[in-house]
Amino acid sequence: MGRGLKVGVVGATGAVGTEVVRLLQQPQWAGNDIRLFGSARSAGQAIQFNGSHVPILQTSTEDLMDLDIAFLVASSNFSVEFTPILVKNHVFVIDNSSAFRMAPSVPLVIPEVNFESIPEDCWLVANPNCCTIIMLMAVAPLRVFGRIKRIIVSTYQSASGAGREAMEELESATRANLEGKYFEPKVLPHPYAFNLFSHNTPVGPEGYNGEEEKMVAESRKILGDPELMVNPTCIRVPILRSHSESITIEFDGPAPDVSDVREVLDGFPGVSVVDDRESNTFPMPIDANGQGDVLVGRIRRDISNPHAISLFVCGDQLLKGAALNAVQIAERRFGLT
Amino acid sequence: MGRGLKVGVVGATGAVGTEVVRLLQQPQWAGNDIRLFGSARSAGQAIQFNGSHVPILQTSTEDLMDLDIAFLVASSNFSVEFTPILVKNHVFVIDNSSAFRMAPSVPLVIPEVNFESIPEDCWLVANPNCCTIIMLMAVAPLRVFGRIKRIIVSTYQSASGAGREAMEELESATRANLEGKYFEPKVLPHPYAFNLFSHNTPVGPEGYNGEEEKMVAESRKILGDPELMVNPTCIRVPILRSHSESITIEFDGPAPDVSDVREVLDGFPGVSVVDDRESNTFPMPIDANGQGDVLVGRIRRDISNPHAISLFVCGDQLLKGAALNAVQIAERRFGLT
Repeated sequence: MGRGLKVGVVGATGAVGTEVVRLLQQPQWAGNDIRLFGSARSAGQAIQFNGSHVPILQTSTEDLMDLDIAFLVASSNFSVEFTPILVKNHVFVIDNSSAFRMAPSVPLVIPEVNFESIPEDCWLVANPNCCTIIMLMAVAPLRVFGRIKRIIVSTYQSASGAGREAMEELESATRANLEGKYFEPKVLPHPYAFNLFSHNTPVGPEGYNGEEEKMVAESRKILGDPELMVNPTCIRVPILRSHSESITIEFDGPAPDVSDVREVLDGFPGVSVVDDRESNTFPMPIDANGQGDVLVGRIRRDISNPHAISLFVCGDQLLKGAALNAVQIAERRFGLT
Repeated sequence: MGRGLKVGVVGATGAVGTEVVRLLQQPQWAGNDIRLFGSARSAGQAIQFNGSHVPILQTSTEDLMDLDIAFLVASSNFSVEFTPILVKNHVFVIDNSSAFRMAPSVPLVIPEVNFESIPEDCWLVANPNCCTIIMLMAVAPLRVFGRIKRIIVSTYQSASGAGREAMEELESATRANLEGKYFEPKVLPHPYAFNLFSHNTPVGPEGYNGEEEKMVAESRKILGDPELMVNPTCIRVPILRSHSESITIEFDGPAPDVSDVREVLDGFPGVSVVDDRESNTFPMPIDANGQGDVLVGRIRRDISNPHAISLFVCGDQLLKGAALNAVQIAERRFGLT
């Protein structure tokens, strides 16, 4: 299987980077040369990798240019600075930041949905926003029932979307709350213990925040439908790592039957249907945590519109929402599946 | 102000009962004779009430029949059993259970919205479901802009909706989680620490659970529009006492301007607009806790539909969602405002 590929993970110690490193220890990546990069702060540390210790290297242009594949899971600024030179040197870059997602020449890819949008001679692929990936894994398969014209979505987003520090802040804030102690938020702008709040990206002129604007623009690009209407409401809830989304999908034509929707979703790679009305068993974040699949349930005809269906999804923000999707892009590109 | 009314609270030690008792200590209730009833288990205990200790009486038909006003904040079964005899004896009953909400002869009332639906000779008023009240406080005022034909709502419901035991379970489960200990859920059917789940009421043939069916039927009754379309998704989140809701409202005609919506909501009693896009300040449960007003923000035109607007509300489930609404009904009925 191994092809002696030189594979770099930039931002290897972050919340997403840690998951990329974990996924690269799977058998299909054996025989390749994995190199881990971090900031000056983490350089010199070592990470357990398939039983041996791999050092965290300080990121340098020279070292990165030597790679065949670079997973960029650092900041947008980092991606903006380093991607052009890597691409020029034919390093295949999978960028997890939002920097290049909407650039017309850069494919924005969920492998199960639009892998074929990556042209032959392509050195940069953007990894979509986590909420977009998790939503479209449930929505895209339903295009077999006809054109989707409108999506109304409310998110229940976990702390991990704001990085490891936010996850730690949620735990620390909750611990302090239970002990009756004051906790000053440092990572997120609002108290997080037993609280929720509108996503803290800047709000644009139409009243939608940055996260919501991403969901609109990225969904149109990935589904290849610039006319698609999307109305997102993005809310951070006190959950550690899986995102949930309540989604209503309106078709141009009549809504499909629930049993047909279930069957199509059940047969779609990367989706697990969790939808037992009798026992009230539906997707929950604790069941999605650590799972590669996006869980879909509460599948029903929208009683308020004969053209629509509603459903509820949970997906691990760090896996399919970020690291797993990025690794899957590389696996398919390099025939490692 | 006082009129020597004999006022009973049945279920005085529960989560909602405790709030009713607190509200009855306000000046407008001075001079009335407040009697607190509980189960055999809590009878004999005493509650602090305006500086003195008031005993919890064991509930008996005889004692209840002697009342002028009875707040029933116990179980549906209790309401079904005792309400007929109280009504027959001209005790004015405000029932917080779902037992009589959909009975055609029983007014279902949010005072700010449809107080006038209580006829002169009426002895039973039903207090609506908490999610319905909190939603309609934001939706009902908007009828000045034309008929509302469809509401799509996703809830972020707190533990308090399942009673005090559920609130305690959320805290205990979270504490155990943070200590790395196993916790067996007893009150709710799923682990609650850093988790969320679809509302645990039975799911009906159309795929909507009991809580969602209540929101549909009760909204139609309160707004007096049997054609109103409502598509709810009810989700319990790990929050202690305020419910949040992401709401999209479709009008028959074009959507109103955001500034007009803000103005109308701002002028509506019981609503506070919390909607500062610049500073990203919107409703949060911790700000709604203990507040009588329902907080409304994220007010915007729905970018996916020219007939719709979207907003996000938070309201204290125990106050406007239950106890406060019930007490307000009595205050207006007996001229105590």
